[in-house]
Amino acid sequence: MKRLFNDPYDIVEEMVEGYVGAHKQYVKMCDLDEAQGRVVLANDAGTKDKVGVIIGGGSGHEPLFIGYVGEDFADAVVIGNINTSPSPDPCYAAAKACDNGKGCIYLYGNYAGDVMNFDMGAEKADEEDDIRVETVLVTDDVVSSENIPDRRGIAGDFFVFKVAGAKAATGADLDEVVAAAQKANDNTRSMGVAMSSATLPAKGGTIFDMEDGDMEIGMGIHGEPGIRRGKIDTADNVIDEIMEPILKDLPYVEGDEVYVLVNSLGATPLIDLHVCYRRVAQILEEKGIKVYKALVGPFACSMDMAGMSVTLMKLDDELKELMDAPCDTPYFTQK
Amino acid sequence: MKRLFNDPYDIVEEMVEGYVGAHKQYVKMCDLDEAQGRVVLANDAGTKDKVGVIIGGGSGHEPLFIGYVGEDFADAVVIGNINTSPSPDPCYAAAKACDNGKGCIYLYGNYAGDVMNFDMGAEKADEEDDIRVETVLVTDDVVSSENIPDRRGIAGDFFVFKVAGAKAATGADLDEVVAAAQKANDNTRSMGVAMSSATLPAKGGTIFDMEDGDMEIGMGIHGEPGIRRGKIDTADNVIDEIMEPILKDLPYVEGDEVYVLVNSLGATPLIDLHVCYRRVAQILEEKGIKVYKALVGPFACSMDMAGMSVTLMKLDDELKELMDAPCDTPYFTQK
Repeated sequence: MKRLFNDPYDIVEEMVEGYVGAHKQYVKMCDLDEAQGRVVLANDAGTKDKVGVIIGGGSGHEPLFIGYVGEDFADAVVIGNINTSPSPDPCYAAAKACDNGKGCIYLYGNYAGDVMNFDMGAEKADEEDDIRVETVLVTDDVVSSENIPDRRGIAGDFFVFKVAGAKAATGADLDEVVAAAQKANDNTRSMGVAMSSATLPAKGGTIFDMEDGDMEIGMGIHGEPGIRRGKIDTADNVIDEIMEPILKDLPYVEGDEVYVLVNSLGATPLIDLHVCYRRVAQILEEKGIKVYKALVGPFACSMDMAGMSVTLMKLDDELKELMDAPCDTPYFTQK
Repeated sequence: MKRLFNDPYDIVEEMVEGYVGAHKQYVKMCDLDEAQGRVVLANDAGTKDKVGVIIGGGSGHEPLFIGYVGEDFADAVVIGNINTSPSPDPCYAAAKACDNGKGCIYLYGNYAGDVMNFDMGAEKADEEDDIRVETVLVTDDVVSSENIPDRRGIAGDFFVFKVAGAKAATGADLDEVVAAAQKANDNTRSMGVAMSSATLPAKGGTIFDMEDGDMEIGMGIHGEPGIRRGKIDTADNVIDEIMEPILKDLPYVEGDEVYVLVNSLGATPLIDLHVCYRRVAQILEEKGIKVYKALVGPFACSMDMAGMSVTLMKLDDELKELMDAPCDTPYFTQK
């Protein structure tokens, strides 16, 4: 372990305390009892005539999810323990804190625990406070299932959250925000490669074993099994292997325009990510697919895991406009 | 090695190619022959009535330096090989490309190779094109020498570059930009801890040996020796050990106001950095030092090195205003 923490069972609480202190110009703790110290709000949450945008999931993926709460992006994050869904009560509290009469949207990666607990939060918001809460699940990881609704959400979360946050900021109603988020998810596909396991503070070591020099193509951000383990290949060969299933899946075809996200899983440095992006751009150019814009960096991580993922979102005019809309959060600001 | 690249001798060229492609709305290659493919310019470099702000150094520290070239921050970056100073000709080319009659400022961390080559670039700019180039060296690493001018520059680079970029954007003359950058450096102190070595693609392994579970307090971002090696301690104890020499050095005292940067050296995740920030904030509060704002994340890295550093900059009204000034670059945007 090459990690810095105190009592491993306090790491999430101490992270949240540090986070809210460091980024106080953007966020604050939710003071509802049901929040249980696990809901962080944008400073203006619940004060505007807009749909409340609520994201969340297990910790350990920072900047996802907490990093994207702020102005004109997400209004609240619900925070679970490391690699663990948040509890239902904080999900409920987030809805209560963010609703201003237009309802709320829950957005998160498709994992069974998250679905169960966010759904319970939505039910309670409906029953106790008559708040309408809708959900859009992110399902961008192409190798996690052949059946799209069964797929897991990984770095594509970022695109879906950004689109929904920007749509809500226009004052759109809940059905419109849901439709925009659903369109973003429908047009987004990702796939990754892992070269090491993350380490778990409470376990004092790695989640799974991987020999130094090995990689696993298609591995999930919690270490879910991928499709092939082997020796680490050249960046270009790895990107070729990742891009093929992504492109085929939607499919992305000649004439399409895409937003690209080359994401670090944690320990893979920007120098390597840009070498990878170079090959992504070459492949897209060969296929006649235009890159509208690209983001390269740590967006959806797995703590200190070495690895990366590629995400493409096929764009139309609405998605471009929503991706380009200004926002201001601790880990993503756009003028 | 858990890295992704192709031919290790092409990694910097391929990174630059990927970078300029990914972030084309911000930057472009400098097309002067002397740039040798190692100068990246802000799209508006040399077009405004302002001092040209030129940063640079070896590769492998991304987002430093290349990530901070854009609008109202740096106008150009000069790029060396991994952990190696750029050559004199690209330093010269950057000045030629950025000068618009007001001269240029070179800003970089204080390392012998960088000083030699940037100085040769400045001399050539003076002799061949009559461009005045001044230099401010960043010397924030408190443990690197007792003598301040001999100290190395680490994450404090970010603050000095930001202040200089914002000052230049006001249309200030070269002496004023130099004075602002010098003031930023004079008020900035850093110290770090490493828990692993970075890996070097061309070497196929680590720069130095470190046992899993060990840390070295005060280690530099290229693996320069620190002051103590031992077992990794709790985050709070590590921060206590780092903060003491930082606070004593300036010194930072009751009533001061500071900008805090908690920086990842690469593989240390945001969850750990925020646990560390929590303790930094506690110590500052105990001492009666006010946190104006804080940044937490990867700013000055050493590829996949595990570790982090703390930087404090003591603020006055001018430094606050310059730190708060809007800017727009691939890795730091402020509204």
